[in-house]
Amino acid sequence: MVGGGPDAFIGGVHRMAAALDGRYDLVAGAFSSDARKSHDMGGELGLDPSRAYASYQEMAEAEAALPAGERIEVVSVVTPNHLHHAVAKVFLERDIHVVCDKPMTTTVEDAEELCRLAAERDLVFGVTHNYTGYPMVKEARARVRGGALGPLRKVIVEYSQGWLRTLLEEGGHKQAEWRGDPERAGVSSALGDIGSHAHNLVRYITGREATRLFADLGTVVAGRRLEDDATVLLELEGGVRAVLIASQIATGERNRLVIRAYGADAGLEWSQEDPNRLRIVDPHGDETILYRGSPALCDAARAATRLPGGHPEGFIEAFANVYRGIADAVEARSAHTSATSRPEPSHTALDFPTVQDGAIGVHFIHQAVRSSRDGAWVDMNWQPPPSTNEP
Amino acid sequence: MVGGGPDAFIGGVHRMAAALDGRYDLVAGAFSSDARKSHDMGGELGLDPSRAYASYQEMAEAEAALPAGERIEVVSVVTPNHLHHAVAKVFLERDIHVVCDKPMTTTVEDAEELCRLAAERDLVFGVTHNYTGYPMVKEARARVRGGALGPLRKVIVEYSQGWLRTLLEEGGHKQAEWRGDPERAGVSSALGDIGSHAHNLVRYITGREATRLFADLGTVVAGRRLEDDATVLLELEGGVRAVLIASQIATGERNRLVIRAYGADAGLEWSQEDPNRLRIVDPHGDETILYRGSPALCDAARAATRLPGGHPEGFIEAFANVYRGIADAVEARSAHTSATSRPEPSHTALDFPTVQDGAIGVHFIHQAVRSSRDGAWVDMNWQPPPSTNEP
Amino acid sequence: MVGGGPDAFIGGVHRMAAALDGRYDLVAGAFSSDARKSHDMGGELGLDPSRAYASYQEMAEAEAALPAGERIEVVSVVTPNHLHHAVAKVFLERDIHVVCDKPMTTTVEDAEELCRLAAERDLVFGVTHNYTGYPMVKEARARVRGGALGPLRKVIVEYSQGWLRTLLEEGGHKQAEWRGDPERAGVSSALGDIGSHAHNLVRYITGREATRLFADLGTVVAGRRLEDDATVLLELEGGVRAVLIASQIATGERNRLVIRAYGADAGLEWSQEDPNRLRIVDPHGDETILYRGSPALCDAARAATRLPGGHPEGFIEAFANVYRGIADAVEARSAHTSATSRPEPSHTALDFPTVQDGAIGVHFIHQAVRSSRDGAWVDMNWQPPPSTNEP
Amino acid sequence: MVGGGPDAFIGGVHRMAAALDGRYDLVAGAFSSDARKSHDMGGELGLDPSRAYASYQEMAEAEAALPAGERIEVVSVVTPNHLHHAVAKVFLERDIHVVCDKPMTTTVEDAEELCRLAAERDLVFGVTHNYTGYPMVKEARARVRGGALGPLRKVIVEYSQGWLRTLLEEGGHKQAEWRGDPERAGVSSALGDIGSHAHNLVRYITGREATRLFADLGTVVAGRRLEDDATVLLELEGGVRAVLIASQIATGERNRLVIRAYGADAGLEWSQEDPNRLRIVDPHGDETILYRGSPALCDAARAATRLPGGHPEGFIEAFANVYRGIADAVEARSAHTSATSRPEPSHTALDFPTVQDGAIGVHFIHQAVRSSRDGAWVDMNWQPPPSTNEP
Repeated sequence: MVGGGPDAFIGGVHRMAAALDGRYDLVAGAFSSDARKSHDMGGELGLDPSRAYASYQEMAEAEAALPAGERIEVVSVVTPNHLHHAVAKVFLERDIHVVCDKPMTTTVEDAEELCRLAAERDLVFGVTHNYTGYPMVKEARARVRGGALGPLRKVIVEYSQGWLRTLLEEGGHKQAEWRGDPERAGVSSALGDIGSHAHNLVRYITGREATRLFADLGTVVAGRRLEDDATVLLELEGGVRAVLIASQIATGERNRLVIRAYGADAGLEWSQEDPNRLRIVDPHGDETILYRGSPALCDAARAATRLPGGHPEGFIEAFANVYRGIADAVEARSAHTSATSRPEPSHTALDFPTVQDGAIGVHFIHQAVRSSRDGAWVDMNWQPPPSTNEP
Repeated sequence: MVGGGPDAFIGGVHRMAAALDGRYDLVAGAFSSDARKSHDMGGELGLDPSRAYASYQEMAEAEAALPAGERIEVVSVVTPNHLHHAVAKVFLERDIHVVCDKPMTTTVEDAEELCRLAAERDLVFGVTHNYTGYPMVKEARARVRGGALGPLRKVIVEYSQGWLRTLLEEGGHKQAEWRGDPERAGVSSALGDIGSHAHNLVRYITGREATRLFADLGTVVAGRRLEDDATVLLELEGGVRAVLIASQIATGERNRLVIRAYGADAGLEWSQEDPNRLRIVDPHGDETILYRGSPALCDAARAATRLPGGHPEGFIEAFANVYRGIADAVEARSAHTSATSRPEPSHTALDFPTVQDGAIGVHFIHQAVRSSRDGAWVDMNWQPPPSTNEP
Repeated sequence: MVGGGPDAFIGGVHRMAAALDGRYDLVAGAFSSDARKSHDMGGELGLDPSRAYASYQEMAEAEAALPAGERIEVVSVVTPNHLHHAVAKVFLERDIHVVCDKPMTTTVEDAEELCRLAAERDLVFGVTHNYTGYPMVKEARARVRGGALGPLRKVIVEYSQGWLRTLLEEGGHKQAEWRGDPERAGVSSALGDIGSHAHNLVRYITGREATRLFADLGTVVAGRRLEDDATVLLELEGGVRAVLIASQIATGERNRLVIRAYGADAGLEWSQEDPNRLRIVDPHGDETILYRGSPALCDAARAATRLPGGHPEGFIEAFANVYRGIADAVEARSAHTSATSRPEPSHTALDFPTVQDGAIGVHFIHQAVRSSRDGAWVDMNWQPPPSTNEP
Repeated sequence: MVGGGPDAFIGGVHRMAAALDGRYDLVAGAFSSDARKSHDMGGELGLDPSRAYASYQEMAEAEAALPAGERIEVVSVVTPNHLHHAVAKVFLERDIHVVCDKPMTTTVEDAEELCRLAAERDLVFGVTHNYTGYPMVKEARARVRGGALGPLRKVIVEYSQGWLRTLLEEGGHKQAEWRGDPERAGVSSALGDIGSHAHNLVRYITGREATRLFADLGTVVAGRRLEDDATVLLELEGGVRAVLIASQIATGERNRLVIRAYGADAGLEWSQEDPNRLRIVDPHGDETILYRGSPALCDAARAATRLPGGHPEGFIEAFANVYRGIADAVEARSAHTSATSRPEPSHTALDFPTVQDGAIGVHFIHQAVRSSRDGAWVDMNWQPPPSTNEP
């Protein structure tokens, strides 16, 4: 793990998500740019002290120097945004698979480079657009893509939070500080941090890319250096109309990520704060509420579930599904390259967001910033460098 | 009543709303452009046959010819949109107060004329933007305007329906037919029919007018002649950011009108399909759910309530509040003009949407159509001719 | 109307419910045992002063003396409980139909007498167990009785309120005062006032009578003279297990009446504070939420509905359905007895709770009091005197 | 771990709960009474083959024979009920701490023996009444015990499931099979399996023991050998009235565990399927919804939380809190007994259900069976053998 030191919320999430299914052991890390903090963190996590490194460069070199069975197979990159590219690159170059937080990079060019590197070396590169890990999101995807709503017509997605309603970044709040700093966060705050999740969720569920967009970004809190509120109108492939709302100043909202899709024949709705349910509406307005754990769900949703219905699963379980999917892909890659072939895993391999998904997210952020600056619709037709080996 | 014949949904609502509090007697009507249907409807409603008129012109003349105590005091105009102006005008010119459905007119010029007429003759002119009649909307208004959220920053309003997901207007569906016909509905369908309610609700609750807007109108169902889906970005006075979504093709949605307002210190949310509750969120995400009937509510909310908490009130009661407010205003006007002064009503007079509110709604629709056509922001600074006597 | 003076909540509800559909005119009343208050109330309601009577006896005599077309056809009895019997009796004896609040009487013997009187004179006698008027309750009934849940197994009904959490009756609160006084309320407070509604709802939806019960009544607030909290275990015909909870000291609950029924194949749930929905659960826990206004509903539910889905109806509309059903029955009786036969009403006649339903409710209350006193199960096999002419 | 073989749902839950916080390593197990299955399971879980035992007796002996730092410190007992006592006893006698599933034993005498054994040897003995692990349950407890509701008056708890709506135990369903068999489940099914959780939740939140109870147990599904539906009326210390409903035949309910408590000044409600919220109702019916993650919560609730608000936690996280509390207690015990003292843990130690809680649950089940058989109230005053060292 690179990043995820004592003040970092997301590092702990990555560790719990990796631990939940017993598919990962955390054996090495460069948890902080402060060598002492990194070593202390390693100690707290029970690591061999020699593998709590002072920097990610040191870690990459030292791990790559270990024998094949001893070195890390996968690295998790959970630093602030501006470091994702450099860290991921150095590990990819040493043939270590990567899990990277989002937004994947701060420029489109960097994103393209990671796509190319992962493809060249045939490495697994997962991006933690973790909301795709929820079973009921997988069910929504199966239904929308499978035509259960009829021809798709409209998508509304919203991701609202209220935690940046004040100028928190000026008060020493570590999380807010780097997210509000263009040097570390990149060109965007609201879209980069949460809007990109919403955009990815639209793509994941509908299977459609945006063809054009109109964005209106605003900085509501005086003194802030990046936008904290954004509305984006999207046209998706096939002329589907979509609205994306992202806000960090929606006071009182915790983590309100809600997506709705309407087809000619039905609609559906999923809400991240109530993730075990999926609402399907029929043309007369009667609703079916499907629950995680139901035998009516698709294979992917069922594979992504650990408990029977009525025993709520949450954020960590969904995050763990991304990690599980990456573990499946890494094992499949190892099996492929090893002399002795391994049996197929007994379970359905879970999908996960790829380096291409990460790149498309980075491109989205940049085009939205451009549209808002110009007050005009912008074209969205664009493709990242492809994978050689689709997961 | 003009309009409200056998196939008209809204006519019956107006009648129940007027009856609920015993403040109105229905004594005359021109219910249909078909004289026979109008007379039959009158009979069904127990009217004196001589006052079930063959046309609104005949009705206006005949009623105006009756002695003061016998003629109608107020007319309800519940025809398709294109007739609102002509009908309202003919009654105003005979000094009869008007209740008019929305959108008030199909052109801004007509709206201005009605404003001037009502002002010149000092008549009451209420527009049934009925959602303002809900007690919890009045509470939301008191809180937002009273500063309970802190400085206002963002508003999200959505009014989604699914009933026009097919080309219903081609199949003989009366309600859909005229709403889809530019000759009768005006320049807009989704914004005219429901978006104008959403826009009025924003104005009502926040007390702020739009200063500019960007609209994207779409016609999703092939063969339809007006837009059936719209997104409008609004900037309100004071730089408040607002998003308005209106759709008639959100399959499965019944009448999903939801408004949220976020200030620097708190947020609130009200949903028309669950109208007895008002959600207030504090900065930490904890919520207070206020109920209609609570002693914690403002005077206006309490005055608009008939039953204790836990005994649900709904659409008719809210609609009746608009009628009750108009009755209060008509009685106050009568008292003012009569020789013998009347005592003040014992209850708090309820507010209601005025002819100016109606005009601002018509202007909104037209500017949104223009913005969408041009793909550009448009200016919204505009004022209707004022009332001489604020209700 | 007898009762329903200035301090009485329920009188206003009865008046609005009667007015909503234009099927009743309020023309006479004895609104208070204080003659002056009764006359003032009549004036406020726009009655002919000669028909605002000083007592119900005077009203019964005077109205009976009027010619057939002029006298009242139906009387609404909305007094405290102890007067229901005497008032209803005096009007029945003059061949005037009766609408009576619940519990119908304070003794089983009185209830039996009213059953016999109504039967002998072939009069309509409706009891305002108003919760049966909700469309979705009618839908629940159709489904349970029609077998949609499979063989019925278990019913849970709860009616909780919190308004009597303090000794309100000592502080001059009119509503609490008589409800807490055995002289006026009868042998029970919680069961009489609200538990009897819950019991009637079980019978209405399931079509099954109790065969035995075990009750535990408690007086939680010190100084109170009747029970304010009760749990009743019921065995229904066919061995169906049922639990009934009624409380007036559930602090903070407004009017929480919720019923659930479970069969071998499915379950359902309806909640009075959210009355436009009906939840159906399938064996795997997936849910269907049916909405008032849906074409999927039964005839009775559709007949009991005034507005399309998404336009909430509430307590008054449901109450009005009881009144409408009684109007249908009175008109049918008039048609039957008049020389000239009348055409059938064009709409589906609505059902309503009868004098027998009222009597069964009174018997339930008395048996529950007995069971609780003895700490033992009691037999519930009992039948009221039958109607001669089922509505 | 003893039990938790391939068909056992709860074994996997225990393993994920133990893994989540990195406080436990699974190193040994007797997963099945079938030696081969046990070894296979050990292999699947990555255990040293020598520590996948053929029986719990073998495991106890072999582990006890290992040096102190190598042998297991804690054993999890996740077998069917009838084995809990024997397994727990053999490990306690070898000074190994115990985590035991519930109901703890099938007789009161066995429960008493475990209490005495744990006390004599000063061992940690946790019982997985896991619902106490939810942060919002801890908040409810703090509020009820701290007097936020005023004097407590009434508690309603319900635990309804529908999975046993058919005679599943006859069809080879392993989970249903042993739960329906008196030889393995004990004297009760519904109360033993889920009612005991509900009872423990009442005790946990209110801090009050039952003083008497009346129970009505029923076997709804023909052919079943134990009760599948139960209602229990409880009187708690201080005269608090309580109702407990437990059902396994509530068709369509997944895992509906809901508890409400009403005091003189306020009420509260928590629902296991929506575990991140706690509803508080004020006397006027307005509600406060507190969310997990809120700074308004008590220390215990905050200590039991891993993620910020809006990032849902669920069943595994709550279960893990029981495991974390036991780990805290085991470490504290080790520190106490070791020569070198250890520093205090930096975090708040979490509470967990003890062997006494387990015993009180077993006594409850037996008294309910007796009351139902006799159709009479039974006395509940009883105390298990005490701990020497309260956790």
